[in-house]
Amino acid sequence: MQEPVVEPHVFIILGATGDLTRRKLLPALYHLRDPENAEKPTRLIVGAALPEMSEEAFRLWAYEGLHEAGWRNANELRAWCNTCLHYQTVRQGGPQDYEALAGYIRQLERTRHMPENLVFYLALPPATVPATIEQLDRVGLLKGRGWVRVVFEKPFGHDFYSARALNTELHRYLDESQIYRIDHYLGKETVQNLLAFRFSNPIFESLWNRDRIESIQITVAEDLGVEHRGAYYQQAGALRDMVQNHLTQLMTVVAMEVPVSFEAPAIQSEKLKVLHSVSPIIQDDVIFGQYTAWQVADVTIPGYREEPGVPKDSITETFVALKAEIHNWRWKGVPFYLRTGKRLPRKLTQIAVTFRDAPIQVFRSLEPGSIPPNKLLITLQPSEGFSLCFSVKSPGRPFSFSERALQFEYEKSFGPLPEAYETLLLDVMTGDQTLFVSAEFTETAWRLYDPLLAVERAVHPYSASTWGPLEADTLVERNGHQWQLGW
Amino acid sequence: MQEPVVEPHVFIILGATGDLTRRKLLPALYHLRDPENAEKPTRLIVGAALPEMSEEAFRLWAYEGLHEAGWRNANELRAWCNTCLHYQTVRQGGPQDYEALAGYIRQLERTRHMPENLVFYLALPPATVPATIEQLDRVGLLKGRGWVRVVFEKPFGHDFYSARALNTELHRYLDESQIYRIDHYLGKETVQNLLAFRFSNPIFESLWNRDRIESIQITVAEDLGVEHRGAYYQQAGALRDMVQNHLTQLMTVVAMEVPVSFEAPAIQSEKLKVLHSVSPIIQDDVIFGQYTAWQVADVTIPGYREEPGVPKDSITETFVALKAEIHNWRWKGVPFYLRTGKRLPRKLTQIAVTFRDAPIQVFRSLEPGSIPPNKLLITLQPSEGFSLCFSVKSPGRPFSFSERALQFEYEKSFGPLPEAYETLLLDVMTGDQTLFVSAEFTETAWRLYDPLLAVERAVHPYSASTWGPLEADTLVERNGHQWQLGW
Repeated sequence: MQEPVVEPHVFIILGATGDLTRRKLLPALYHLRDPENAEKPTRLIVGAALPEMSEEAFRLWAYEGLHEAGWRNANELRAWCNTCLHYQTVRQGGPQDYEALAGYIRQLERTRHMPENLVFYLALPPATVPATIEQLDRVGLLKGRGWVRVVFEKPFGHDFYSARALNTELHRYLDESQIYRIDHYLGKETVQNLLAFRFSNPIFESLWNRDRIESIQITVAEDLGVEHRGAYYQQAGALRDMVQNHLTQLMTVVAMEVPVSFEAPAIQSEKLKVLHSVSPIIQDDVIFGQYTAWQVADVTIPGYREEPGVPKDSITETFVALKAEIHNWRWKGVPFYLRTGKRLPRKLTQIAVTFRDAPIQVFRSLEPGSIPPNKLLITLQPSEGFSLCFSVKSPGRPFSFSERALQFEYEKSFGPLPEAYETLLLDVMTGDQTLFVSAEFTETAWRLYDPLLAVERAVHPYSASTWGPLEADTLVERNGHQWQLGW
Repeated sequence: MQEPVVEPHVFIILGATGDLTRRKLLPALYHLRDPENAEKPTRLIVGAALPEMSEEAFRLWAYEGLHEAGWRNANELRAWCNTCLHYQTVRQGGPQDYEALAGYIRQLERTRHMPENLVFYLALPPATVPATIEQLDRVGLLKGRGWVRVVFEKPFGHDFYSARALNTELHRYLDESQIYRIDHYLGKETVQNLLAFRFSNPIFESLWNRDRIESIQITVAEDLGVEHRGAYYQQAGALRDMVQNHLTQLMTVVAMEVPVSFEAPAIQSEKLKVLHSVSPIIQDDVIFGQYTAWQVADVTIPGYREEPGVPKDSITETFVALKAEIHNWRWKGVPFYLRTGKRLPRKLTQIAVTFRDAPIQVFRSLEPGSIPPNKLLITLQPSEGFSLCFSVKSPGRPFSFSERALQFEYEKSFGPLPEAYETLLLDVMTGDQTLFVSAEFTETAWRLYDPLLAVERAVHPYSASTWGPLEADTLVERNGHQWQLGW
């Protein structure tokens, strides 16, 4: 955790003309620019994509994107685009194109006296990834005198075997230390806040085990539907799209042991240990749902089967709730409830830790269960922070309790937090893999969920704008619990 | 804790023409009136005092006091004064006076068809208390067909032997269950909030021991000086006036084990157990101080020795800081720092619980000790509530922590809390001794502090409007601690 150094490098975006480049990557890269070396930049950005486009046109397109993203100093923006941004057409991705790309990059490096350090950001359809890596290798771009790091977007396979095959393929050309599987759902700041909270506040860490905790819930709720991604989503479903990666990542961060240090290998290793301890998930402990249309007055939200690209008889799930158990000394017997869905009432990513009740009721005049348990709600979206729920005596008589919450919000306390992409791209540039997904994590997570993908399953309908099918409530209620909806 | 019943009774205030009656007792009694029986009140109030005063004059004086206290409905106020308030002169407290008082009370009871239930509130100088009790007994007022309860104000003796003598004297006429030693510094609501907080929030109770807690501080700071009480205070000092009663009460409430139930005998018994476990206090662990004058611009605060009624060479302490240790399984090794003083910078009653540091520093780049420990600050005055202090990662780079506090205030959450006197008087009427001080508690507390009263001691000067002498800081610093000043 010494202040990391960004060495001079060329940052190559493959698939550079897409939405992601303009909305996320370029604003993040602009924010990470080095004003001290504005005229002799230590980072060049090369966009490469199918469209025939002049460097001039690419710069203009980028300029407009940055302007839309809120950057307003026109002169500085233009200067940065002109000195830092480059473009190279890679038509159908044929061999000559990659040779031309390689020549262009090496030429740039020579002209600017830069070492051969390269970041490749693959903003490409998953199917084209292996061939692209092979081409980059063939033209020598994966081996130079400097370092090479390659950023991959999810999905990392669609089940255990495809993930293993993909990893095997990548490992033919790249060492695992060069591979950055990005899971931008978890911004670096968010994960660091979460881990820092656990390990800098011993009062919570000393409560963080089966003796004190009754259950843990992880909710990733989206209010949107599948939007324009119907065709992709139809092949994926919520288990692949969200549970195998985001929710499982969150579960391991919440459940991990205290690492040896706060550095990438130590943290990755603890997360993996958690994953290896998860018991096989019983089919009865998984509820699938699919949203149906919802109408109020003259507003209609279409059901999943009415979305473009989705068959009328689709049984793809847009909602999953499941109970996982971590079979280790710390967590044995504490249910981890994971839940995610589209078209839920609101956007909410939350970890709800419910502590055990007092062993006996000292206040004998009260009904058993009339004092709610302590809860810690850690909210990641829409606003990062946490709430500690506790009981206080209501003033006066008769003797009774009220539940109150102490609330903390990072942005209220500190102002806006950095964008997830910005910190993750900086990690790639400095070689910090803490927040990226290892091959082993991906494969182990797939192995956990593969049995649930294979079986024939009931998909319960739920009305859009509700918290999923009733069966998901039953799942927690049969253990005496209930879903938490935030404070 | 079933809703307690107030049986019809006569409430007799001895020393009824004093400030306490008008400012505290009558407003509390008025607030506790029974509007359902406004015309046939189930509670009559008899004021008795030295001055020759007509019942009419007493009622008018009371009416004005209630008006000043904020009650504004003139008709209701007058009606209540006329139906409920009575006055009887008890000139020098001679036998005939008490016979007349007894006759008056019995006559009232017969006229109003009331049972012989009596509360005596002794708002009298301490020296006159034993003789008064003897007189009340002689005229038969302590024995009737109903119940008799007697409320005593502190001081309850000035050392162990005087306290024991006083208790022995009282026990000649009254059973301990009839004796209500009032310690109004601790309002019922405050103590109940504190205990309810501990025993309804298992996360805190599970941290409440030597494994998790580094130290506990109890501060009762007053910004005022001795005011018009110089002559009394000169004989008492802070140890007698505050530490033996208020601070020791607070210490036992904070440190007590979970009681069998939330009822008076169970709670009293646990408080006593704590008191019996306190190790003898070492003389080196006690710091005495006395305030000296403070001047800024043309405002002068006089020093203690300049106060009216105080000798110029007084060595009476106006400040005490001490370290106590509770020699039981829960607390062995955790210092309890008690501190009280007059003319400190502000009014503050606070219990500060400092939790232990994390056993190791996972964040290796940080200096050791750069993460502040978790703290729970329970504030009783000026505003009841608590703050939980914790660490969060500061956003962005470099990696560092900030301390933040989650704060809760009862009055912000619930509106104004009931006045201490009101709830305590209601307890007397319903026969609930939870919040009153038992003979054994008083004597045991005196036995703890008697050795410190006997020795010759240094009294360190401190400037008015500071937090006491430097020696008090040294007391905690030599154990690696520091005084907490609230959030």
